[in-house]
Amino acid sequence: MTVRVGLLGCGVVGTEVARLLLTQGDELAARVGAPLELTGIAVRRPDRRRDPAIPAHLLTTDAEALVADVDVVVEVVGGIEPVRSLLLRAMASGASVVTANKALLAEDGPTLYEAAAEHGVDLYFEAAVAGAIPIVRPVRESLAGDRVERVLGIVNGTTNYVLDQMHSTGAGFDDAVEQAQALGYAEADPTADVEGFDAAAKAAILASLAFHTRVPLERVHREGITGVTAADVAAARASDTVVKLLAICERTTDPDGVSVRVHPTMIPRDHPLASVRGAFNAVFVEAAAAGPLMFYGQGAGGTPTAGAVLGDLVSAARHRVHGGLGPRESRYADLPTRPMGEVLTRYHVRLDVEDRPGVLEQVARVFAEHEVSIETLRQTVAGEQDDQATRRATLTIVTHTARDAALGATVDALAKLDVVDAVASVLRVMSD
Amino acid sequence: MTVRVGLLGCGVVGTEVARLLLTQGDELAARVGAPLELTGIAVRRPDRRRDPAIPAHLLTTDAEALVADVDVVVEVVGGIEPVRSLLLRAMASGASVVTANKALLAEDGPTLYEAAAEHGVDLYFEAAVAGAIPIVRPVRESLAGDRVERVLGIVNGTTNYVLDQMHSTGAGFDDAVEQAQALGYAEADPTADVEGFDAAAKAAILASLAFHTRVPLERVHREGITGVTAADVAAARASDTVVKLLAICERTTDPDGVSVRVHPTMIPRDHPLASVRGAFNAVFVEAAAAGPLMFYGQGAGGTPTAGAVLGDLVSAARHRVHGGLGPRESRYADLPTRPMGEVLTRYHVRLDVEDRPGVLEQVARVFAEHEVSIETLRQTVAGEQDDQATRRATLTIVTHTARDAALGATVDALAKLDVVDAVASVLRVMSD
Repeated sequence: MTVRVGLLGCGVVGTEVARLLLTQGDELAARVGAPLELTGIAVRRPDRRRDPAIPAHLLTTDAEALVADVDVVVEVVGGIEPVRSLLLRAMASGASVVTANKALLAEDGPTLYEAAAEHGVDLYFEAAVAGAIPIVRPVRESLAGDRVERVLGIVNGTTNYVLDQMHSTGAGFDDAVEQAQALGYAEADPTADVEGFDAAAKAAILASLAFHTRVPLERVHREGITGVTAADVAAARASDTVVKLLAICERTTDPDGVSVRVHPTMIPRDHPLASVRGAFNAVFVEAAAAGPLMFYGQGAGGTPTAGAVLGDLVSAARHRVHGGLGPRESRYADLPTRPMGEVLTRYHVRLDVEDRPGVLEQVARVFAEHEVSIETLRQTVAGEQDDQATRRATLTIVTHTARDAALGATVDALAKLDVVDAVASVLRVMSD
Repeated sequence: MTVRVGLLGCGVVGTEVARLLLTQGDELAARVGAPLELTGIAVRRPDRRRDPAIPAHLLTTDAEALVADVDVVVEVVGGIEPVRSLLLRAMASGASVVTANKALLAEDGPTLYEAAAEHGVDLYFEAAVAGAIPIVRPVRESLAGDRVERVLGIVNGTTNYVLDQMHSTGAGFDDAVEQAQALGYAEADPTADVEGFDAAAKAAILASLAFHTRVPLERVHREGITGVTAADVAAARASDTVVKLLAICERTTDPDGVSVRVHPTMIPRDHPLASVRGAFNAVFVEAAAAGPLMFYGQGAGGTPTAGAVLGDLVSAARHRVHGGLGPRESRYADLPTRPMGEVLTRYHVRLDVEDRPGVLEQVARVFAEHEVSIETLRQTVAGEQDDQATRRATLTIVTHTARDAALGATVDALAKLDVVDAVASVLRVMSD
């Protein structure tokens, strides 16, 4: 018996998948229990210049024919169409699917899951979240006997690199992005990364798996890092925290539900996620029985992603040889995704204010009116200020937990106070 | 259909497994696709006082009858016999096995693997290595398409707690152990932990999985932490490193093989493993495609271990319901385990020496005679020393990589030099 594999896409990841399949055949065969045969690689432009490791005779433009005649389809093209149609066709023809396509899974995962269930085939997608890091399989399988309470992920390497640069050099956002682009960590158009779109897709997938619930992408609250300033980073450092773009997936109670969101977050410097530097990714999971877990590694790159794809391919191929099926979609919990305004968060707010009696009372009243309780408040006066009438101070306030909408309204109201010159910085703080 | 589960053992972990099985039945049934029924709990003393969550009618002393009449046996007793016989009997009767028994797996894993293969049942053991941390499944399955080059594990919480205490308080070994005992992190007799026996068993299991090779426990080189002094820790801190008890499993070349060892190791402060504090565990994996990965979490404790056991139970039970089998023993690579003396390591050596011309030359000659190359050498003179004849200095030497036997012989020869008062500290340094 031979397991026939069709590859869709031959970019950076696809080339590496093909190379590993063609050069590590013996090892893979030993692990699968049967040889794997790469029967074709569907590409749009077969005449394009390619890595010499790719045999020209495997290239084809007829993706539809390829997927209908294999045991496993490996998809590393990306995007919604024509990929979705091809994968549905593959499954209808009885092929299992291994994909790295986070956009498609976040956008329309249920359609794929249902097709896999209907046709009795596997659907694996380890490479779609956090690249090389095994996180999909641990959440779906290792934690299958546990109850996940919260997932905190640094799932976008570009933004982690940019924020890490801002922290370590004091650079502003634009300079840090430029440097990331120069080093290949950011695209020429970095929108998908810096605006949090990439992280939001991964958050939707992670939350679905962790909470056995469908989480539509449009219910994921998304804020990128374009608004994070050097002053924010300096303020974070002053309070012994670091700013990270976190994908936060958590259970809510009263009412029961899940909250899924992506936004810049201040995390304590001694939290394991704080030490995730450069373009690395990490996913921190809090489970009822297991307690805190962290998974750390490279979140992107051709070879790491190809490694994750091959792990899935071995699993799918083993099922072809030995029988059995991987985990199905698990959505029995069916929890609602709560709107951001209702979610409990904490804010770190810095205000530039007049330094005179009564200011603090006015500020405190705004918090009280919105029923937001203050955890810490620190007032600092910058340098010597001779003129009594124009003395200025900075108030740094960290709130207790409150509904995000109330916190947002508090900040809006603070901005309107005469005694407040400016809201210098607003960042959410990681809750315990 | 109902999946019948028999539990062997009702200590801390067993009680928690039973409690979760009995209270989270609906969630587990949703994940398995069929209800799980706990049919019996084999104990030695059924009349012992137990957690009220444990129904007395489930307790039995007839473990042999229990394992012969279930679909899955969960074993949390520990030790070699009678457990091995019971598990073999269970598998012969067609039951899959979930075990947390690292001693049995390290001692006689092949017998269990072979029985599982012969009878077509599953053998899962996530909880046997690093407690709650999903590491067995990622290595066996997620990295199945990759090539693991090295595994570095902090796999014993007691020793990590003790070393962490020594680092953070400057305490000596005995004081730190006493404190660990007071807090419940160390047993009254801490031998199995502090002498590295526990870590060695886990290293043997991890190496077998990572390298597709049988690694007999007696081929694991083992050194505990009883010889680590406050001076060693101070020396480590001075060179911006931390001392950890590492389980190191690595491929060797020239000749091909694997090296598996447990010993105190200096690791750079900025390495992700250096930030693993207290009784936490972590496993750092270097794979050809994935690059560096780290898995972090709680390595022990009733509830975390029970969570890992239940994850395995869900997998084994799913196979009962939906067909299929988990991964088999993979030992096609069949690499020899190299003796410690031949392994390439690096040493950090501190010598108390006379401070006079010619001393450095004698020391350097000893290294040269053993063909050990020095990477860095630092000489420090403590305080004011008036008497020329008795001036003393400390030499801190870090070597390049060399055979461990040559390094050991170098240290022995140094100790015999007249100009060397004492070899104050010898620690291995993590290689790149």
